[in-house]
Amino acid sequence: MSWRDYVRPVTPYVPGEQPKESKVIKLNTNENPYPPAPGIDVNAFRSEAAVAGGEGPELRKYPDSTAHDLVSAIAAYHGVEEEQVFVGVGSDDVLGMAFLTFFNSEKPVLFPDISYSFYPVWADLFKIPFKTVPLTEDYRIRPSDYMLPEGEVGGVVFPNPNAPTAILLPLDSVEEIISANRDSIVIVDEAYIDFAPEGSSALSLLPKYDNLLVVRTFSKSRSMAGLRIGYAVGSKEVIAAMQAVKYSYNSYTMNQPSILWGCASIKDDAYFRATVGKIVATRERFTKKLKELGFTVLPSSANFVFAGHPEVPASEIFAAARAKGIFFRYFAQPRIDNFLRITIGTDEDMDTVVSFLNEYLG
Amino acid sequence: MSWRDYVRPVTPYVPGEQPKESKVIKLNTNENPYPPAPGIDVNAFRSEAAVAGGEGPELRKYPDSTAHDLVSAIAAYHGVEEEQVFVGVGSDDVLGMAFLTFFNSEKPVLFPDISYSFYPVWADLFKIPFKTVPLTEDYRIRPSDYMLPEGEVGGVVFPNPNAPTAILLPLDSVEEIISANRDSIVIVDEAYIDFAPEGSSALSLLPKYDNLLVVRTFSKSRSMAGLRIGYAVGSKEVIAAMQAVKYSYNSYTMNQPSILWGCASIKDDAYFRATVGKIVATRERFTKKLKELGFTVLPSSANFVFAGHPEVPASEIFAAARAKGIFFRYFAQPRIDNFLRITIGTDEDMDTVVSFLNEYLG
Repeated sequence: MSWRDYVRPVTPYVPGEQPKESKVIKLNTNENPYPPAPGIDVNAFRSEAAVAGGEGPELRKYPDSTAHDLVSAIAAYHGVEEEQVFVGVGSDDVLGMAFLTFFNSEKPVLFPDISYSFYPVWADLFKIPFKTVPLTEDYRIRPSDYMLPEGEVGGVVFPNPNAPTAILLPLDSVEEIISANRDSIVIVDEAYIDFAPEGSSALSLLPKYDNLLVVRTFSKSRSMAGLRIGYAVGSKEVIAAMQAVKYSYNSYTMNQPSILWGCASIKDDAYFRATVGKIVATRERFTKKLKELGFTVLPSSANFVFAGHPEVPASEIFAAARAKGIFFRYFAQPRIDNFLRITIGTDEDMDTVVSFLNEYLG
Repeated sequence: MSWRDYVRPVTPYVPGEQPKESKVIKLNTNENPYPPAPGIDVNAFRSEAAVAGGEGPELRKYPDSTAHDLVSAIAAYHGVEEEQVFVGVGSDDVLGMAFLTFFNSEKPVLFPDISYSFYPVWADLFKIPFKTVPLTEDYRIRPSDYMLPEGEVGGVVFPNPNAPTAILLPLDSVEEIISANRDSIVIVDEAYIDFAPEGSSALSLLPKYDNLLVVRTFSKSRSMAGLRIGYAVGSKEVIAAMQAVKYSYNSYTMNQPSILWGCASIKDDAYFRATVGKIVATRERFTKKLKELGFTVLPSSANFVFAGHPEVPASEIFAAARAKGIFFRYFAQPRIDNFLRITIGTDEDMDTVVSFLNEYLG
């Protein structure tokens, strides 16, 4: 025997490339082109000189393990109770914890075949059986595909808007899926929902369904990918189950800067709305130009578009753009290997992209 | 059926209390009384105004998923290669990942009966069988107790110095345990090793044993509990196995402040040695005074002492101290229920503790 025989076999998720150069146009990981809320006080931590009489958190001390200030700010923002909110190290941590907590049966978990590629990775990691459900021909989630005979589903998870398609599933369809699977947890992964029309979120369904978990992130609409903050909202009972698993893994997951600056972001709602509004406007403008260039663009409700050209392979455009310092995301997967996932940057960023495409295609 | 049937059953770890009041003497979670290295630049993040031309990390962007700068600084500090270092959200995250990665067999993992109480919690969470090994009468780890017939051990983990006893296992005894278990991973959890005499760390054994994983934290000796930084050092192959599991759970675990300020801590070695030296001196001074007060004090190589009084129950001293705003840690467990775990603060903190004890006992 060797210790190698006892190692968990896994196939890790591969995140988008993080180029070291600062002169690139980085549209490959759906980051926000605008900085986080200006209310973030980077001077909030006590320095050595100030430690005797200073105020504010001390880095030498453990953070509040409940991250209460942040949880409380998020709860107030969504009009739910504090016990309905779970926070984690990005929505990946939150989703991973949710898989570990709720998908603990022998029954398969369902998710779309074209979706966030981390779902099958978590399932493998935690030895959770799963079944992928094909999107329709036009890349949509069809609720009836998630309605299996009672007792055959171990859980459901899907992003809304879906990634990398950017397509929004209407709220009544989301409800059909939740309602048809009341004996298992349905996770609606709303990483991009802030870029969708108001009224699209499954949060409004929470009072009706105790099997619903809505997951969000600060990494996209709140411009805070660098801090790693994600959260989930559910019934008190659902959140208590997640907390128990979290406290069985790591007592203190949210560090002091995340708690402090996360609160500052929530509190500046005007800034949040303004930057999200700018990105949505840029997306519409960019989509129009892509179509003029002959691209097929799936209808986007996210901070990225999923687009392909009928005549030029996406892989070639991807490589040519990369050579010019423009980073898109390309997935060499069946059905989507002629699409590029392009993050929406500033108007200026997107103008540069359009110029490049114009020249490259023309 | 109900979704409740699919929830993972767990019994979470309970962390030490984090009092909200700032006027207390907090000696219950082994934090460092001194602030982190003064080289930490809290102004390092780009503000909105500076974003156009500024330097430094932008919070809107994902952190480097490899946390390369931090990994590189730690590797250089210990004189190992970068591929031998794994970083995580505190040593709890690192230990949790190590359990998930390496203890994936049907064979029991061994750890002391009196030890870090998170070990059985992780084992339960990940359904890992385990067997606790009693400490000796004088609260020591006896290497021969960890020498089972070949093929009967799924792994070994113990803290060195042990917690909450604070007792150091000599390096030759550590080596006996590693050497007797070459077919499974042995984790030496060195959260407190910086407070032990030089030459005590198992890091020096790494070139000889590919089944060894040494785990460290920034939370104690580096005064950075609030940032959540832990790490592991092992062979390249061992670390690669952990990385694969980590990338199967969360691509970006270390946020930008952790990476940046963690590096600053490593780089200021003089400050680090000075504060560690102060704590060791205070520990020796405080231990002497405790003994004068009639306490039994286990020999400590950590930043805390484990002490009990032959005539006054520890639970009563704990409650009386708490009422005066002095927080110790008390474990209502067999064999150690007449001990208090007292973190070493500043000389001034400990003088206050001695005055309190003097008055309370006299």
